[in-house]
Amino acid sequence: LSFATDTAVTAAADGEFAAEIRPGWDVVGNANGGYLMAIAARAMAPAARPDPISITAHFLSPGRPGPVIVGAETVKEGRSYTTVRCTLRADRPVLTVLGTFGDLSEPVDAPERVDAAPPDLPPPDDCVRVVPSESGFPPPMMDNLDLRIHPHDATFAVGEPSGRPMFRGWLRFEGEQMDTVGLLLAVDSFPPTIFNAHLPVAWTPTLELTTHVRARPAPGWLRCQFTTRFITGGMLEEDGEVWDSTGRLVAQSRQLALLPRGS
Amino acid sequence: LSFATDTAVTAAADGEFAAEIRPGWDVVGNANGGYLMAIAARAMAPAARPDPISITAHFLSPGRPGPVIVGAETVKEGRSYTTVRCTLRADRPVLTVLGTFGDLSEPVDAPERVDAAPPDLPPPDDCVRVVPSESGFPPPMMDNLDLRIHPHDATFAVGEPSGRPMFRGWLRFEGEQMDTVGLLLAVDSFPPTIFNAHLPVAWTPTLELTTHVRARPAPGWLRCQFTTRFITGGMLEEDGEVWDSTGRLVAQSRQLALLPRGS
Repeated sequence: LSFATDTAVTAAADGEFAAEIRPGWDVVGNANGGYLMAIAARAMAPAARPDPISITAHFLSPGRPGPVIVGAETVKEGRSYTTVRCTLRADRPVLTVLGTFGDLSEPVDAPERVDAAPPDLPPPDDCVRVVPSESGFPPPMMDNLDLRIHPHDATFAVGEPSGRPMFRGWLRFEGEQMDTVGLLLAVDSFPPTIFNAHLPVAWTPTLELTTHVRARPAPGWLRCQFTTRFITGGMLEEDGEVWDSTGRLVAQSRQLALLPRGS
Repeated sequence: LSFATDTAVTAAADGEFAAEIRPGWDVVGNANGGYLMAIAARAMAPAARPDPISITAHFLSPGRPGPVIVGAETVKEGRSYTTVRCTLRADRPVLTVLGTFGDLSEPVDAPERVDAAPPDLPPPDDCVRVVPSESGFPPPMMDNLDLRIHPHDATFAVGEPSGRPMFRGWLRFEGEQMDTVGLLLAVDSFPPTIFNAHLPVAWTPTLELTTHVRARPAPGWLRCQFTTRFITGGMLEEDGEVWDSTGRLVAQSRQLALLPRGS
C-alpha cells in the first residue's frame, strides 16, 4: 500500500477524474471515509492550492474496491482560496464533497493563541500498535499506517473499554511523509470512540465528516486525540485534533455518526 | 422582522427557488451567515424531511439585501435522509451549501450519554441584553432575537474583553417559536469570540460553518456557548453548543474564520 499512489487521480473528459478505490483501505469491505475524501481532494485541489483548508463530505453509500469517477466543479476561484464541490461515484454516488483549498506553504503573519495542548502520551514504543487482523478488523491499512494507541485507551481490544469515548495515540505513515491530504485520512484512522464507551454499539456509520487543516505537518510522528461528548438523538459527534512533531495543531475534525436505531 | 417570513423561498423554474435577503439581518451591510444558511435550508429541505441534520456552508461573497436565487439539487434520497447541495447567488455566488435533511419529529430509541452540561448562566434578566445600535453593531436583527449575554462575557462592549475567547448566554426569538432552521441562525448570532480575546482583531470573516441539529428545540429560552481554543495559522475555529429549555443539546456548530493577515 502507498497512500500517494492509492489516492492518485487521472484527468478524464469534461472536468472529471478517473480513480480507483484500492483494496486494503477498507474495513471489512467498506473503504475508509478519510481515504475516500483524500481521493476526492486530489481531484478537487487546484495545482497552486493543494491544501484542503476546510473540507466536508457526506457519505452516501459504501465505497467498494474498484474504479470510480470524480466529477469536480469549481464554485469560486478567489484571491486566496478556491472552493470546489464534487461527487465520487461508482455505479452509484459514494460521497459528495465540498471544500475550500489554499496554499499553506508560507507561514502566516497573524496573532496566535492556543488554549489546548497535545495529548500526553507515553513514547510510541510504550503504546499499543494496531496491526491488521485476518478478520478485517483492524483493517489492512494498518500495515501502511503506524498507529500506536495510548495504553489506557487500548484495552477495548481485549473486551475492556476504558469507559470514556476517547482515543489518543501516535500516527505516521510507513515510509511516506504525510501531506495535508494525508491528514484527511489521519482524522479517520482511529477506532470509533464508541468502542471505549460502555454501550452495546458495534458500528456507527459516518453521515458527515469535516476537516480543517491549519498547517502542513512537519516530518515525524503525529499526536492525535478523538473524543465524543454527546451521544444523543441516535447520533454522536467525534472531535479530532492532530498535532505534528513540533507541537503544532495541524488539523481539527468533527464527524457526525449514526447509532443503530433500537440498539 | 420575522424570521419565518424573512427566510421564505418560492419555487421557480428548473428546481430553482427565488428568495430575498431582507434588510435588518445584516451586520453593517453584510447579511448574517446563519441567516443566509437558513434561506438556503428552506430551499433545500424536502417537505417530509424539514430538519437539517448536518449542513455546511462555504461563504463566497457578502450577501446584500435584495433578491437571490437558490439552485438546489438532490444528490441522494435515502431511506431516512436526503442529501442536497445548493448555491445561493445574487449577481455572483454568495454561499454554497451541502446538507443532509431528515425528520426529527419522533424520539429516537438509542442509547444516550452526555459528557457535558449547558453553560451555567444567571437568569436572563441578570444578563446583558444585546440591543441594536444606530452604528449597525449590534445589528438590527437583535430586535427580533432576544439575546442575553452572561455578564462576565459582556464587558467587551465597554472596552474590557474578558480575556477568554468565549461567549455564553440566553437566546430566543421575539414572538416566534424557533424551529430547527432557526437553530442555523442561533449558532451564528453571538458576537465573534475573538472580541473577548486580548488580540487586536476587529473582524473575522467566516470561511465555513457546519451545524449539526440533534433535536427540535422545546419552547422557551435556549442556552448557548461559543468557544475558541485555536487561533493559529491565520485561522480560528468557533465551536457552538445550543441547549433547549429542557436541558437537551439541540445543536452543535463549528465555524472556521479568518484573521486579517498581518493584523
